[in-house]
Amino acid sequence: MKLLLSNCGILASGEGGFEYIPRGFLGIDGKSIDYIGEKKPEGYERERDMTGTMLIPGLINAHTHTPMTLLRGVGSGLTLQEWLFDKIFPLEDRLTPEDVRAGSELALLEMLSTGTTSFTDMYMMPEETVEAVLGSGMKANICRPVQCFDENERPEDNLRIRQSLELFDRYNGAGEGRVLIDFCVHAEYTCKPRAVAYYADLLRERGGNLHIHMSETKKEHSECVERYGMTPAEWFDSLGAFGSDAFAAHCVWVTEGDMELMARRGVSAVHCPTSNMKLGSGFAPLRRMMDLGINVALGTDGAASNNNLNMLEELHLASVIHNGYACDPTAVKPAETVKMATVNGARVQRRADTGQLRVGMRADIAAIDTTAPHMTPNIDPLALLCYSAQGPDVRMTMVDGKILYEDGKFLTLDAERIISAARERALRLTGK
Amino acid sequence: MKLLLSNCGILASGEGGFEYIPRGFLGIDGKSIDYIGEKKPEGYERERDMTGTMLIPGLINAHTHTPMTLLRGVGSGLTLQEWLFDKIFPLEDRLTPEDVRAGSELALLEMLSTGTTSFTDMYMMPEETVEAVLGSGMKANICRPVQCFDENERPEDNLRIRQSLELFDRYNGAGEGRVLIDFCVHAEYTCKPRAVAYYADLLRERGGNLHIHMSETKKEHSECVERYGMTPAEWFDSLGAFGSDAFAAHCVWVTEGDMELMARRGVSAVHCPTSNMKLGSGFAPLRRMMDLGINVALGTDGAASNNNLNMLEELHLASVIHNGYACDPTAVKPAETVKMATVNGARVQRRADTGQLRVGMRADIAAIDTTAPHMTPNIDPLALLCYSAQGPDVRMTMVDGKILYEDGKFLTLDAERIISAARERALRLTGK
Repeated sequence: MKLLLSNCGILASGEGGFEYIPRGFLGIDGKSIDYIGEKKPEGYERERDMTGTMLIPGLINAHTHTPMTLLRGVGSGLTLQEWLFDKIFPLEDRLTPEDVRAGSELALLEMLSTGTTSFTDMYMMPEETVEAVLGSGMKANICRPVQCFDENERPEDNLRIRQSLELFDRYNGAGEGRVLIDFCVHAEYTCKPRAVAYYADLLRERGGNLHIHMSETKKEHSECVERYGMTPAEWFDSLGAFGSDAFAAHCVWVTEGDMELMARRGVSAVHCPTSNMKLGSGFAPLRRMMDLGINVALGTDGAASNNNLNMLEELHLASVIHNGYACDPTAVKPAETVKMATVNGARVQRRADTGQLRVGMRADIAAIDTTAPHMTPNIDPLALLCYSAQGPDVRMTMVDGKILYEDGKFLTLDAERIISAARERALRLTGK
Repeated sequence: MKLLLSNCGILASGEGGFEYIPRGFLGIDGKSIDYIGEKKPEGYERERDMTGTMLIPGLINAHTHTPMTLLRGVGSGLTLQEWLFDKIFPLEDRLTPEDVRAGSELALLEMLSTGTTSFTDMYMMPEETVEAVLGSGMKANICRPVQCFDENERPEDNLRIRQSLELFDRYNGAGEGRVLIDFCVHAEYTCKPRAVAYYADLLRERGGNLHIHMSETKKEHSECVERYGMTPAEWFDSLGAFGSDAFAAHCVWVTEGDMELMARRGVSAVHCPTSNMKLGSGFAPLRRMMDLGINVALGTDGAASNNNLNMLEELHLASVIHNGYACDPTAVKPAETVKMATVNGARVQRRADTGQLRVGMRADIAAIDTTAPHMTPNIDPLALLCYSAQGPDVRMTMVDGKILYEDGKFLTLDAERIISAARERALRLTGK
């Protein structure tokens, strides 16, 4: 079945970067894009008039914790310690598989309605998230985070390592490749070296893709240096964790040496600007990471610390805050942050066939309404996308050529049931 | 005619601050609020079911340049000098009164559709903006900025001072008080002291309200110190400009002494976080200003440097960036930034009867949709407003009890004509 999207702006990718077509046609054959151009092509059975929208590559949220969407708004304005220990941890301790499923489903609704087509998740009971994703038509890289608090524990006995491998064996490549399973060490401060070294061996054997939290806060970074005489990046590297593909969320406090190491080892960084601002973590050295050639993607982090999963907002913050911090309006350019939110995220997910609008790529697409007052005039489409577009401006979200969201309606998910279940569970959990 | 808004969340103001009613009723008699409560009152001729929304005080944009909305997206990613001198100034030089009117009208659409009920504007040909506001039903404080580049010019001969006074005489209090005329000195670097001193005398005589740009960039601040041996705040004060009400946009580089002076003289600050970030101006000392008791309001600045007029986005940035900069998640609290965007802005506008939902205040109200996935669950309404709500979530905007915007429709403005005219004029101006 061939489908033509007609009469819309198209943020296409060419050899030299983005190439904007103010009014064009995008053809889809099955799951993939087979035409992009200004002239109307022949041979499409179905045609959809997309006048008044701009097609962009589906956004890729490269670091989040979808089940925490249930905890949106919990403990705002607390210190990180109070927030985690007094609010989040006790609540998480009570989460059932049904809660995890409800939180993930709510997150899928939010992401689809704000133009995200694929996300990378880290949370417990990940089977629930996998099943939600499989039913939704979205793409996701999911993992079971490994932790180990006891240095006497034999790594072979670590329950979470076992669960991580089981998850991989059971689900990697599920849904015709829509679900990929990553490996994951939660963070340096939650895992003993012996477990990491053992897990890293398995990772290299299998050619895995490792998801970690790294140097998010100054405290975390410097306590690692005190503990081991190494930065978190050096510590992970010393244990062999960077011997296969790896990507590190946050990277706020990475040193020059850490960044050189990441560049050398091909470790990607996932920048989470809203979370870093809201939780007071600080400013990641975004410009420097990019200048050293590190692949930097963009993530929302969880809704408990953001408080949303809106990649257009992340794009906005990444595009402006570093200019402010460096007192330089040229520090970060729209074309750079749009790549972070799309093709760089695809690389973190090891998906070579998404993140760009280009013939041969998967039809993972978001359509942004450009008719509203706040999107007028459209003089510079990249600037419009970074600085002006809002999550609810997304009119349509498509994955593998299939429309999953359009004009407020979800085509694969029962939004009414999910929202009401999420509300109920959230109220029960927080006792409100 | 009495109108009842029913079955909605209400962010009311009580003696101790905000008081949230999860499901209540707000009654309006003519232009003013006459009931807020959980029980349904009698005696309202009309009733409107607002289920699924949260009523908040209409947002007050305390510093903008509405005609520049026509230039949204011009010169993104340039240095401030290139942006101003190569892009903005040559374009502004070609602006006609019709362009100014078209830009202001586009701005009104954007502000109404994102919950703003009143704004404070600074631009040339302000009569055009005044007339647009009068026809729209919105509220605005408008001024004719005074500049003087020739120290030999007799202040009595300064065209702009004359225009400023004429504007005041002609329009102050127009539209039953919806339009107020402010006095304005554009900035220290665009005005000779003799003109400021003369104008400040007039200001004090008339009990005026002075709008200025102050210490926006480090360069501006330190060049003033070099030129006069005084900071911009000290310079304005030395010329008598703080002898009546005054408010200063930006205040990024104000010193401790400047802030003490502002507190002593009752000078308000208008924080413009997005513009300060995007243009690389820096971080205003928001926490310190608040701690010293300075009234701090919130503004978008112009759409050419933002790139929108969305106060919910401003609220978001003000709520998160200072935590990041101070590495302290408790630096700025939602209740503080919501006040900045509402009642503190009303004070900058010298409007004692707006900015709060409270019996006796004007019915200047925005209704935010709380049914979308990204607004679920509603555990903490202030956090939801600061961190999760998006401009397009605004369902209804009301000024003086009159609905001006509802569900994508503008009731006093011809949106189709305005948007198409703005597009045409923007394309002609930028030669695209």
